[in-house]
Amino acid sequence: MTAPSWIAVDAMGGDKGLSVMLAGVAQARRRFEDFRFLLVGDEAAIREGLSAHPGLTANAEIVHAPDRVGAEDKPSQAIRRARTTSMGVAIDLVKQGRAAAAVSSGNTGAMMAMAKLALRTLPGIDRPALAAPLPTLGDNDVIMLDLGANTEVDARNLVQFAVMGAVYARAILDLETPRVALLNIGSEDQKGTDVIRDAAQTLRNATGLPMRFDGFVEGDRLSRGDVDVIVCDGFSGNIALKTAEGTARFVADLLKRAFSSSVRSKIGFLISRPATELLRHHLDPNVHNGAVFLGLNGIVVKSHGGATELGVATAISNAAKMVRADLTRRIAQDLATITPAEAA
Amino acid sequence: MTAPSWIAVDAMGGDKGLSVMLAGVAQARRRFEDFRFLLVGDEAAIREGLSAHPGLTANAEIVHAPDRVGAEDKPSQAIRRARTTSMGVAIDLVKQGRAAAAVSSGNTGAMMAMAKLALRTLPGIDRPALAAPLPTLGDNDVIMLDLGANTEVDARNLVQFAVMGAVYARAILDLETPRVALLNIGSEDQKGTDVIRDAAQTLRNATGLPMRFDGFVEGDRLSRGDVDVIVCDGFSGNIALKTAEGTARFVADLLKRAFSSSVRSKIGFLISRPATELLRHHLDPNVHNGAVFLGLNGIVVKSHGGATELGVATAISNAAKMVRADLTRRIAQDLATITPAEAA
Repeated sequence: MTAPSWIAVDAMGGDKGLSVMLAGVAQARRRFEDFRFLLVGDEAAIREGLSAHPGLTANAEIVHAPDRVGAEDKPSQAIRRARTTSMGVAIDLVKQGRAAAAVSSGNTGAMMAMAKLALRTLPGIDRPALAAPLPTLGDNDVIMLDLGANTEVDARNLVQFAVMGAVYARAILDLETPRVALLNIGSEDQKGTDVIRDAAQTLRNATGLPMRFDGFVEGDRLSRGDVDVIVCDGFSGNIALKTAEGTARFVADLLKRAFSSSVRSKIGFLISRPATELLRHHLDPNVHNGAVFLGLNGIVVKSHGGATELGVATAISNAAKMVRADLTRRIAQDLATITPAEAA
Repeated sequence: MTAPSWIAVDAMGGDKGLSVMLAGVAQARRRFEDFRFLLVGDEAAIREGLSAHPGLTANAEIVHAPDRVGAEDKPSQAIRRARTTSMGVAIDLVKQGRAAAAVSSGNTGAMMAMAKLALRTLPGIDRPALAAPLPTLGDNDVIMLDLGANTEVDARNLVQFAVMGAVYARAILDLETPRVALLNIGSEDQKGTDVIRDAAQTLRNATGLPMRFDGFVEGDRLSRGDVDVIVCDGFSGNIALKTAEGTARFVADLLKRAFSSSVRSKIGFLISRPATELLRHHLDPNVHNGAVFLGLNGIVVKSHGGATELGVATAISNAAKMVRADLTRRIAQDLATITPAEAA
């Protein structure tokens, strides 16, 4: 393994363009001064963009990639162009050991497929999962996975997701013994599908894992902050994540409507603006940006397509924390602990 | 079929006790003066409670049931006591034709099991589904089903849910041609599971149905108001519903925290109180209360366990609207339209 302090960034991914990506990297670099960056994409454009960021320029190298993955490209199309696209080259830098992590704001499906093909899954992992931190009322974010990589799963997959999620929570949230729960439609033991009940059984019996299995959690408790890792299949995870985003926006829209419904409420709104700004910050997806594909031989972080400078910086910071925590090795270690129990 | 204007109410179900149930029925009666009520439960207790509601007393009959279903009772236990429990007797009154609908705030699983056994599914329906109206930014609520009756479904089930949901939307929301969509993790045709793609194919090909099939909808668009019926399996439906409830409460809690963070914001809050009250009303689950088991030979409405007087009245009002709309017959009619296309 070469220097772990390099992060490869797909400079061409993201809806907001190269300059926002570079500004995000520059912001992350100021937070993590021991990291350096491989900026992947059109060399001339990146060089020009870098002129606004002397601090980053001194700590970055450009890796040229002539092509880019489009938002509408199918995974199969993207894979064929892996060697020429900025996303493909960024992932390949991780494979080569030149970078400890890759970050992209591009097409999720393409990224998943390319990362899986280039990096392969860890021994003991059947399928990688997409994990992300979500805001809660508690002191920490909650880690949720899978958020859409696997529409269908078996009990074995869920158990592996639980182990990976716990390691991730230990690394990112600095928790000694994360509380892990399975997303279900009731909290009683007999609730849900056979797959979920079987996974719960395995997790209840597993010993020696650095986590505490807390049983089932329902959708209304996702943001309560009373659990650290929530495990589910990619279909319901994606539904839950997007429903939460949509509902937060819905309530915010209703609030906006309510506040503009009369002069009196408009005045009230102006007075309490610092409070509502605080709320807006807390719910801003850019503050929680950076989903990671867990279970691969290497760290690959997916930033929102529409991430702002702050969003990009958050995603890269998460990648840096995972590198520092030696995430991949720790997942492999914890998986070795559970495999015997699970095989029984 | 006897007089359709009787609704059987399980007076003993619900966490808030008999007096709230009776107050809710009394409120609903004032809204629907052509309906009368069969109040099922402990005769002496109901008689005593009715003394506060002379208007209801004149339009109600008591049907004695010595026992009640507990919140923790398993469906199998409840079924064995169907003939003696207030919930079982209320459903049986629908079976006998003495009531056009039954309403209960009791145990959902028990209610589902008893209703299915007593009333049986409509011809052409393999499984009933739990449907409920949810708030949106649009002019109407959106009807979502299944919300938890079936953890696993096949394409045929989803198609039947779509037809039933459309009839329900026509009846309750007064829509001529409801827009129906399948809940999925992307809007493109190739997204999701085989089950969902197969159901979409059948719905795209179906003609003559009083609905418009709008393809897939993601979790973040549930409350946008751009679709009238959202169809899904009971697992993801329950996850989405509870996530939406939980997130709305989460945002409200954050808002409360933000508003009490300083004297300035407290003052702002007090001034804009009428606006936030409006919001609270809009999100109050009691305003949207009343899930119905669609697909049975009879109307069975599930009210929230914790429903207030308003909540109970809303659930009963929904039941009354379904009776007026002749819901069961219309579902049977529309199903007959789709069955040939679907069998092909």
